[in-house]
Amino acid sequence: MSIAVPAVLMRGGTSKCWTFDLRELDGLTDDRDGLLLRAYGSPDLRQVDGVGGATSTTSKAALLAPSQRDGVHVEYTFAQIGIAEAKVDWSNNCGNCATVVGLYAVQQGWVAPTGDLTRVMVLNTNTGKLIAQDVPTPGGHPTNEGEVRIDGVPFPGPGIRMGFVRPQGAVTGRLLPTGRAVDHLDTERGPVRATLVDAGNPSALLWGPDLGLDGTELPARVDGDTDLLRVLDQARAHASELMGIAPDRARAAEVSRAIPKLAWLAPSTDQRTLSGEAVRADEADVSARMLSMGRTHPALAVTVSVAVAAAAATPGTVVPESARHRDPLRLSTPSGVLPLWTSSEDGELDTVFVLRNARRLATATLDVPTSAALG
Amino acid sequence: MSIAVPAVLMRGGTSKCWTFDLRELDGLTDDRDGLLLRAYGSPDLRQVDGVGGATSTTSKAALLAPSQRDGVHVEYTFAQIGIAEAKVDWSNNCGNCATVVGLYAVQQGWVAPTGDLTRVMVLNTNTGKLIAQDVPTPGGHPTNEGEVRIDGVPFPGPGIRMGFVRPQGAVTGRLLPTGRAVDHLDTERGPVRATLVDAGNPSALLWGPDLGLDGTELPARVDGDTDLLRVLDQARAHASELMGIAPDRARAAEVSRAIPKLAWLAPSTDQRTLSGEAVRADEADVSARMLSMGRTHPALAVTVSVAVAAAAATPGTVVPESARHRDPLRLSTPSGVLPLWTSSEDGELDTVFVLRNARRLATATLDVPTSAALG
Repeated sequence: MSIAVPAVLMRGGTSKCWTFDLRELDGLTDDRDGLLLRAYGSPDLRQVDGVGGATSTTSKAALLAPSQRDGVHVEYTFAQIGIAEAKVDWSNNCGNCATVVGLYAVQQGWVAPTGDLTRVMVLNTNTGKLIAQDVPTPGGHPTNEGEVRIDGVPFPGPGIRMGFVRPQGAVTGRLLPTGRAVDHLDTERGPVRATLVDAGNPSALLWGPDLGLDGTELPARVDGDTDLLRVLDQARAHASELMGIAPDRARAAEVSRAIPKLAWLAPSTDQRTLSGEAVRADEADVSARMLSMGRTHPALAVTVSVAVAAAAATPGTVVPESARHRDPLRLSTPSGVLPLWTSSEDGELDTVFVLRNARRLATATLDVPTSAALG
Repeated sequence: MSIAVPAVLMRGGTSKCWTFDLRELDGLTDDRDGLLLRAYGSPDLRQVDGVGGATSTTSKAALLAPSQRDGVHVEYTFAQIGIAEAKVDWSNNCGNCATVVGLYAVQQGWVAPTGDLTRVMVLNTNTGKLIAQDVPTPGGHPTNEGEVRIDGVPFPGPGIRMGFVRPQGAVTGRLLPTGRAVDHLDTERGPVRATLVDAGNPSALLWGPDLGLDGTELPARVDGDTDLLRVLDQARAHASELMGIAPDRARAAEVSRAIPKLAWLAPSTDQRTLSGEAVRADEADVSARMLSMGRTHPALAVTVSVAVAAAAATPGTVVPESARHRDPLRLSTPSGVLPLWTSSEDGELDTVFVLRNARRLATATLDVPTSAALG
């Protein structure tokens, strides 16, 4: 016997995610794991007898259902489907697959369009976190088309704004852990002004010009400069101490190499991206660069872009006045201009949106053989 | 704009093949190559924005249509879809994708079932060759289930008998190029009886016991025995001369290392496969081993199994009397028992069938963005 399982193949960011209506799925089987594994062709390194793509980024599932909770449209459960191993991992969310949820919900008619852009509130059940998504619905109609491009995907698609809801204080309990909008960090080149902010991830946002950095730096220039890397590490260590992450700056690296994140900002100036494209000063509001594990990031981590947006929404931080109250806030990064949108509630930062894209690739019915293991 | 393209994802043998109704496809576009490339997400090493699987065995298409020709049910065109390169290759057939054609045609209702097994005649347009397929239709109904297993696929599926139509004489013009059912080949261990047969591929089928080979040999035993390999090469060289492939035996290797193929047969006896499974003497009709590029093949090439079946259908060859007129003829190989079916017309060998499997994985509608390049 076999089961006919409705499923939609969506690309979300740089992943492919088979997307299921959880109500339909649960109506077909008592053994979710068993059904998903067999549908994907697992266990098998090649997943040749199923719809899995035999790589970690193409062996993913998004299980969706309309929500009855207040302020939530869709409940979204992520599953990483084992490839060689007959195991489904439900422990994490996937930021790429999350991107497909709002688009799918609008295309399926679960959420009615509200003008050219439709806000969909998504609850990720793996983490309990709320994600806001703005989905394009031009003229009030669902679409599967768009001209938004992201790194790692050579074709454009519908742009999805992914919103981090109330991102502040997750680690330290406060948006500004030191209570100050600007701190001075000690380095062998003297003090550097910085905003220490806990939003997305705890981040130290340096004012680059204090260290002679003008925000046009590309990885090749920074990563070969061991003096500069040492100075930046001194600033990060001091920030870690001030933010209460490490007990003192000498132990910052020992406590965590991952946080706080270190970035520097500078006024937007004419610059070139990693791929050689020119970006004019007036095409961005502020330049941003960051280190990741001691090396210059080729773009900007999403969590750090959230930190920059939070700092821009907060008076007195190192973010230049000219970059405040922008919608979107445009960051000039080594990979190009990254736009960010923020929304506030009662004067408090509520949600920071980044732009990704997603696309429905195929609408399908899977033929899944049953066995004793499948109810 | 985008186009909705009906497509079925089939596994054929060890490949995945998206299968299209050629009439529907041609009704949607004047640019087949452009449409297929965009549907698969090419050019892109990851094919992340399309349904391609980003490997050569998962970036294939089968374009099918019912045929008006006498004795042909389905015309089948194979396309290898480029991955990093925006190129579709129409120059070859693919034996794996060929396996899906009959199953698809019966499932789509193009060919009406005729009892428990339905014969579908397929014309491959890339090569002009006819392929006969016996598709399971238990009780006269299409199915997508079965218990047949093949190497490289960890799940069972519907067994498809793939038929090589009139395989004899393709290279030399005759089934028995020497005009004799048995020849004697010279070796340093004395003469060896052999049937030299041109079917599937020109093959020298030795009678193993003449060289002390009992047909239970596994690669580890043969490939370390340089004396034996030299003797087998002497037999192959003489066969090449007798079959008219090389002008004389000294030049056999120079003319072709690929043909004639060399195999040896022996009475079926109790033996173990490469994976250690026991095969009893009465589970097979004859034992078969072959060399491929000077090494023992882990199973038996399909073309050589066709040669053995042709020899079994021909009076007086080295195939033991007990292995004649079997349906199926069961060959004991290092990978297990390989069944073969033959059909004759007017007393002449007509078709040799091997057993593969295939399965429909998903029935889909692809969402393919259009561009200026797509009409």
